[in-house]
Amino acid sequence: MSKKGILTVVSGFSGSGKGTVMSGLLKAHSEYALSVSATTRDPRPGEVHGVNYFFVSKEEFREMISGNALYEYAEYSGNFYGTPKAYVDQCLSEGKDVILEIEVQGAAKIKEQFPDTVLIFVTPPTVEELLRRLTGRGSESPEKIRERMKNAVREAGSMQIYDYILVNDDLDECVEALHGIISAEHRRACRNRQLIDTITEEFEMIR
Amino acid sequence: MSKKGILTVVSGFSGSGKGTVMSGLLKAHSEYALSVSATTRDPRPGEVHGVNYFFVSKEEFREMISGNALYEYAEYSGNFYGTPKAYVDQCLSEGKDVILEIEVQGAAKIKEQFPDTVLIFVTPPTVEELLRRLTGRGSESPEKIRERMKNAVREAGSMQIYDYILVNDDLDECVEALHGIISAEHRRACRNRQLIDTITEEFEMIR
Repeated sequence: MSKKGILTVVSGFSGSGKGTVMSGLLKAHSEYALSVSATTRDPRPGEVHGVNYFFVSKEEFREMISGNALYEYAEYSGNFYGTPKAYVDQCLSEGKDVILEIEVQGAAKIKEQFPDTVLIFVTPPTVEELLRRLTGRGSESPEKIRERMKNAVREAGSMQIYDYILVNDDLDECVEALHGIISAEHRRACRNRQLIDTITEEFEMIR
Repeated sequence: MSKKGILTVVSGFSGSGKGTVMSGLLKAHSEYALSVSATTRDPRPGEVHGVNYFFVSKEEFREMISGNALYEYAEYSGNFYGTPKAYVDQCLSEGKDVILEIEVQGAAKIKEQFPDTVLIFVTPPTVEELLRRLTGRGSESPEKIRERMKNAVREAGSMQIYDYILVNDDLDECVEALHGIISAEHRRACRNRQLIDTITEEFEMIR
């Protein structure tokens, strides 16, 4: 089985619970490295710099862009979000599986640069449930809901670029399914060329 | 997640332990349906007609071929082996995951007819271990060993058509890895077009 680190992108609708799935995965399987994004948005209560995000100024973000320090970045609801290269590179070179929780624009950019990336899209089990979660949190303004719906329409249009669709019906099942997908990917023939070549060459010599 | 039955082919080197892996899978996960092959070879002690194989005469096998009742068949060490269509069709129509334990020639023929088939190749962990298992059972004639080596050379040459390489180092791990691969395959986007289309269409209407 391939020991080389696999890069996985997890995206999903707002309200798909992908953040909770990611926390569950890291708790159950500490071998994964979660990439920490840089953002210009303000920290929410409880969010920690360097853990949830690297909170940077717009000035600092522009420097990261011009310094070619990001694998991808995008503007989203008026703020910038990006994936710093350094941590991803370090983890992959150590053979770790790295997970990026980023949105659909970023996913496409990562896949361009790393064609072996596994793209996973998290969705609630039904359209009804999805609409309920998008509109029904109760605490947000109609404007916020409209914006979330607009994003969801765009996200739905990008689902076809993903390799896997992960239905989040039951949290524990979903966490194990995510782990199962990455474990199975390690066994894909295209990630085990070296083993296949060694066996083939050995038999060529015997022949 | 796709509820449609998936067709999986498991092949592997002689001595890879694929038969034991299959037994382990069916014991741990009774939801899988194992296709029973037809063969013209004699039953070995303990083998049961309809369980291990359908043991048929060469005459009967020829009738199955001319009646188009087999998905694939091949001659192997002077005997015929084939996959009867009826059982596979029935299980897939019931939404069951069907597993065929067949050799490399048959695997290619199944993939031609069912492009969605998952092809899994079982191998010992190293070339050294493979050679040890091919030559070292002790009980067989040099002629038998030569034949097994010849088959292994051909099998090694076909490894690249497989989707997954399953290293059989530890039986229980290998069984769960096989189950994990098929579970992950159910979540592949290409097997979940209907869910993606439903979500996309729903949002098109809202738009």
